[in-house]
Amino acid sequence: MRPLTALAVASLALATALPAAEPRARDLGIPFDFGAPGPLNAITDVPGVEVGQVTLVEGAHVRTGVTAVLPRGRGDAARRPAFAGYFSLNGNGEMTGLPWLEEAGVLDGPVLVTNTNSVGVVRDAVIAYAARRWPVAGDGWTVWSLPVVAETWDGGLNDIYGMHVKAEHAWQALDRASGGPVAEGNVGGGTGMVCFEWKCGIGTASRALGKTSGGYTVGVLVQANFGARYQARVAGVPVGQEIGGGRRGREETGSIIVVVATDAPLLPHQLKRLARRAALGLARTGSVAGNGSGDLFVAFSTANPEAGAAEGVVDLKMLPNDRMDRLFEATVGATEEAIVNALVAGRTMTGHDGRTVPSIDHAQLQAVLRKYGRLAR
Amino acid sequence: MRPLTALAVASLALATALPAAEPRARDLGIPFDFGAPGPLNAITDVPGVEVGQVTLVEGAHVRTGVTAVLPRGRGDAARRPAFAGYFSLNGNGEMTGLPWLEEAGVLDGPVLVTNTNSVGVVRDAVIAYAARRWPVAGDGWTVWSLPVVAETWDGGLNDIYGMHVKAEHAWQALDRASGGPVAEGNVGGGTGMVCFEWKCGIGTASRALGKTSGGYTVGVLVQANFGARYQARVAGVPVGQEIGGGRRGREETGSIIVVVATDAPLLPHQLKRLARRAALGLARTGSVAGNGSGDLFVAFSTANPEAGAAEGVVDLKMLPNDRMDRLFEATVGATEEAIVNALVAGRTMTGHDGRTVPSIDHAQLQAVLRKYGRLAR
Amino acid sequence: MRPLTALAVASLALATALPAAEPRARDLGIPFDFGAPGPLNAITDVPGVEVGQVTLVEGAHVRTGVTAVLPRGRGDAARRPAFAGYFSLNGNGEMTGLPWLEEAGVLDGPVLVTNTNSVGVVRDAVIAYAARRWPVAGDGWTVWSLPVVAETWDGGLNDIYGMHVKAEHAWQALDRASGGPVAEGNVGGGTGMVCFEWKCGIGTASRALGKTSGGYTVGVLVQANFGARYQARVAGVPVGQEIGGGRRGREETGSIIVVVATDAPLLPHQLKRLARRAALGLARTGSVAGNGSGDLFVAFSTANPEAGAAEGVVDLKMLPNDRMDRLFEATVGATEEAIVNALVAGRTMTGHDGRTVPSIDHAQLQAVLRKYGRLAR
Amino acid sequence: MRPLTALAVASLALATALPAAEPRARDLGIPFDFGAPGPLNAITDVPGVEVGQVTLVEGAHVRTGVTAVLPRGRGDAARRPAFAGYFSLNGNGEMTGLPWLEEAGVLDGPVLVTNTNSVGVVRDAVIAYAARRWPVAGDGWTVWSLPVVAETWDGGLNDIYGMHVKAEHAWQALDRASGGPVAEGNVGGGTGMVCFEWKCGIGTASRALGKTSGGYTVGVLVQANFGARYQARVAGVPVGQEIGGGRRGREETGSIIVVVATDAPLLPHQLKRLARRAALGLARTGSVAGNGSGDLFVAFSTANPEAGAAEGVVDLKMLPNDRMDRLFEATVGATEEAIVNALVAGRTMTGHDGRTVPSIDHAQLQAVLRKYGRLAR
Repeated sequence: MRPLTALAVASLALATALPAAEPRARDLGIPFDFGAPGPLNAITDVPGVEVGQVTLVEGAHVRTGVTAVLPRGRGDAARRPAFAGYFSLNGNGEMTGLPWLEEAGVLDGPVLVTNTNSVGVVRDAVIAYAARRWPVAGDGWTVWSLPVVAETWDGGLNDIYGMHVKAEHAWQALDRASGGPVAEGNVGGGTGMVCFEWKCGIGTASRALGKTSGGYTVGVLVQANFGARYQARVAGVPVGQEIGGGRRGREETGSIIVVVATDAPLLPHQLKRLARRAALGLARTGSVAGNGSGDLFVAFSTANPEAGAAEGVVDLKMLPNDRMDRLFEATVGATEEAIVNALVAGRTMTGHDGRTVPSIDHAQLQAVLRKYGRLAR
Repeated sequence: MRPLTALAVASLALATALPAAEPRARDLGIPFDFGAPGPLNAITDVPGVEVGQVTLVEGAHVRTGVTAVLPRGRGDAARRPAFAGYFSLNGNGEMTGLPWLEEAGVLDGPVLVTNTNSVGVVRDAVIAYAARRWPVAGDGWTVWSLPVVAETWDGGLNDIYGMHVKAEHAWQALDRASGGPVAEGNVGGGTGMVCFEWKCGIGTASRALGKTSGGYTVGVLVQANFGARYQARVAGVPVGQEIGGGRRGREETGSIIVVVATDAPLLPHQLKRLARRAALGLARTGSVAGNGSGDLFVAFSTANPEAGAAEGVVDLKMLPNDRMDRLFEATVGATEEAIVNALVAGRTMTGHDGRTVPSIDHAQLQAVLRKYGRLAR
Repeated sequence: MRPLTALAVASLALATALPAAEPRARDLGIPFDFGAPGPLNAITDVPGVEVGQVTLVEGAHVRTGVTAVLPRGRGDAARRPAFAGYFSLNGNGEMTGLPWLEEAGVLDGPVLVTNTNSVGVVRDAVIAYAARRWPVAGDGWTVWSLPVVAETWDGGLNDIYGMHVKAEHAWQALDRASGGPVAEGNVGGGTGMVCFEWKCGIGTASRALGKTSGGYTVGVLVQANFGARYQARVAGVPVGQEIGGGRRGREETGSIIVVVATDAPLLPHQLKRLARRAALGLARTGSVAGNGSGDLFVAFSTANPEAGAAEGVVDLKMLPNDRMDRLFEATVGATEEAIVNALVAGRTMTGHDGRTVPSIDHAQLQAVLRKYGRLAR
Repeated sequence: MRPLTALAVASLALATALPAAEPRARDLGIPFDFGAPGPLNAITDVPGVEVGQVTLVEGAHVRTGVTAVLPRGRGDAARRPAFAGYFSLNGNGEMTGLPWLEEAGVLDGPVLVTNTNSVGVVRDAVIAYAARRWPVAGDGWTVWSLPVVAETWDGGLNDIYGMHVKAEHAWQALDRASGGPVAEGNVGGGTGMVCFEWKCGIGTASRALGKTSGGYTVGVLVQANFGARYQARVAGVPVGQEIGGGRRGREETGSIIVVVATDAPLLPHQLKRLARRAALGLARTGSVAGNGSGDLFVAFSTANPEAGAAEGVVDLKMLPNDRMDRLFEATVGATEEAIVNALVAGRTMTGHDGRTVPSIDHAQLQAVLRKYGRLAR
């Protein structure tokens, strides 16, 4: 057995700090629209979806990581493609694998998110992982040959040019993937991320549709790293302007990656429709998708196990377009909530070059919402 | 001279009812973000842009019309194409002329909006208008050969299958185009339109950027016809849920066309960026872009008079991408405000088959905003 | 019964002139790649597909018409949407209905092709036709509310600004739709069209896949109106340069609409893939998709009768991406052949302003191919 | 000074084998359309464009490499973005950096091509290269932060899972970039590539437009790795069928990356138009863009040095759309010729697992063309 490196130990230590005791947005009394969340209020409420995260916090300068979302979990079902679609609201970012996702209508494997300068190493690592785990015969391709890896920029808190993410971190994120609660805030790819000039990072939320709407679940995971202070809105309330601070007029340079999962049987063109709705959830938090923001969204469906079949003629299920409105609402609501969850979960961090980014003060946030009549008890 | 028909008389009567005396959203104390409007708070604040509207209200069943937006006014400059880009947030609608707008990056002529079933007659009428006004020699094309005509559905209040819009109405809308204040609510293409189950229609707004941001103007005109009551938000406040009414759970079947104008020197790919931001303004009013909604947005720039030159190598100006953030904010803010203006301007109407759609009660709207601490004095 | 107008009589006379006696490209010994055609070598080899055409040739100036392709024929199945996708190789043209086709992944009704200035009248006529035939209750939409109507420019031979196509012509094209052989050349929407400066028009072809490839059929119909003489290639041979003539260096101003039909169970994103292959077939005839050319392609599948269902969760079939290569070849081959069929079927025509466009000389074409060792037999 | 590794030595040895003595397609008498090439008949005919290649041939299993194209050369001008556009004909491949290229309309830095499994390492290496060469102050981004790196699959001849491409190879390719002749065939990223089941690789060609067309140059570089034997066409002649061999009916699994360069002052949306024309050049060689093929094309313009300016309002030049036809032809012609050049330059290679891929026999190719009357001279 290969001994754990110092980095990996640091990562594990953080990863095992379960988020259970930490209040999430709803715990603070923040109201959200469009139905009720699933049991975990997380992307993992969609059956089969698993998340694995590796957090790299080391010394004064390393504040980064990797988060992996596996549509069909980390078992052998992971080799089965899932129907998928994407939307680029503002393409100042990277998400590899898009030409094939668009062409074939499938996500061949997992989605990983990390920092901007580590997209490549993570991308190649995904191929190596698959090739080792499911060896190919002859000169064939492995599964996962065109990996989907996205990023946001953590160069404010992380020594991003130090290239601290290694292939083994991507492998660990994949190996650790599981269902259950998802750590939020300063974890995984979100470790060094910042929203509205407050500490931010990974966030998640979900919506469980009622029986008459098919009983489907929509889950969202975000790596959130966007926004100028004065733009911030929570529950429609201009909290950024109320709390103040931030460098007004400064260009927005962050980004947000949104991963939308559902078990509703949607085809690729319908999943593009879901992906586009993530923009509407983002807008409700005050974003204008600034020029410097890489706002890239991907949506997939865990239904239709034969989505990526190579042989025969396969049987599929499809939810008609006319029945998608509740899914659209769920996506908008869960995206908005996942972002606020990321913000609420962020913890003040000092990193690269001694820069410190504060978390939002929960009591202050509640006070502002109360002033505007928007704090649920 | 051809005598005016009864329809045309009715139209003129309405069109001359200037909107001056009617309160607009800001007059009611509704706050909006992202800077100050131009002098008219209308798309016509962008120098050169003209709007012409024909309103058809006749007997019990005709409640429709045509609205024309001319990027370079109705004079001979109208033959000069303007750089343009579009975005389809939800394509359950029609906007003709998109293949060429996308390919060439220009809007060859005006944008007209009308009801769904009249797109064709208006489209051909634009060609006929141009061919008559600027005859071509030999077997050439006229200008405006691939017109941009969009629609929303007024079949609730209008006898839409009666096909009451005629070519002459499109011609009148073009001939009447002018700068100055723009009538809102039950006028032009917006005559029979409905938002959040309240009477709605045409709305407009603008933002004037400060000198340090280039001093540009962004103007927006919407034909708004979307939304379920419970979704409605004004200034971040859930006014739809507060006021109530509406048929909860009913599918949203409306649509919204957004026309964004600016004098900032933007290239076609940058105007797509503006068009996409209209979605974020729409989201702030509570829309989730329901399946039945045709949410199509077009943006153009009045700069670069040589945008559509046929000969030589032309000189252009471009505002760098890095300087677009204020334009993004302006587009988000003006789109949100134009929609609320359309809602505020809507007047209770009874139409086809005796159906009545009420306007939103201004006092009640103000009361709700006051309750949530969001009414400006 | 409404008496036939003179125009309609002229149309019927032409339409009943069956193409049986006329040689098609294969009859001349021109070789084509990628498998064997179906029994008719026409789009109507795809079971259920029907074509109706109205040809308007009257006096010295009227040379135009309408061609309708109905994916599921003209019976009540016509109300069932078919999965579809499109591609704009060069968008200097019009195809209405694209936002919804892209969004929903379906073609709601027929595809009609006509001249540039008549797209609107035909578009509204399709709505009126459907509303009359399948009346809607209450304030609902009819089927076919966002019609797909495309065009090419026949202003060289036709008095295109005379707007001679009327709603009734579109209705006739729909009413006459049938399976069986499809008239080619100077018929329907292709009446006044020109390719490589020879008379051209409507063309069609098909490929029948072998059993091991699923036994599917791909059928193509083109309205072809593109190309400069020197560009023309037939079977890889530079026939345009060999035969000569034409105005070298002149800008290409024509266009081509391609309709691809198949009974293979393809999803919308896969039908986009087929539509894109039409470009490759076009390229084999020498086209470079000139700036003035409106090269718009639409592909649909007649499989999956529930493609446009509004309720429930529907069962679908899908052919895997990995099995599409034969369909790609079939599309490339049938598009190339349909274009050459249109060229071979074109007959010398004198029209508007006394202009005459000659047909290609069959014997001369054969001689050139023989010289290059490319004439079969 | 860092000592050269064995790999680098092998690479240098190959790279210094100039292609001068080797016949190219025109030298064999193969005719091409659409004007005359520039002096080098290479992408480097476009002033300023530089190409650097690293070839890795080592032992029995390593047959791969990296090719870099620098729009503005490797000097400090390399930091200036160039307007660009892309097209995915068949997205079964990877090209990173597309979201920002599409959004901003620029190529921020070079385009690199390598094998499928090495895209990530090359991508991160480009960032590291730029950061080292042009250090950033504070927490800013370096130039080249979202690199464009594309691939085709060399797993038939190369031990692709051995991940033999390292960051230093990407750096060498960048450092070696120069104008002048471009090595073709088994070099750089093309080292292990195969077309129509013959050895293939890198190819290049150009077209120099006449004075009346503006005197612009279009240059193309391809990494060609596609096609089944029976599909192959050269100069319109079915050489694949004539020469025979190949595994008929086998799925096409290759790919082609096309880089189109021009000094014509084109805007981003116009460069998309050029990129799309690469598909038409590809089609002329017989390709149907099979399902397994990653056919991704990028076009850039070296004009407009201010394309990526961050401040002020910049002056640009634009060639009108109406003047693009000669550029379209040049792109089609140069793409076709670059592919045939790659095929002609390919040399028989034995690689991974002892597999051998033969080159096409030049005399046999000439004999076939002569038979079909298509050999010049």
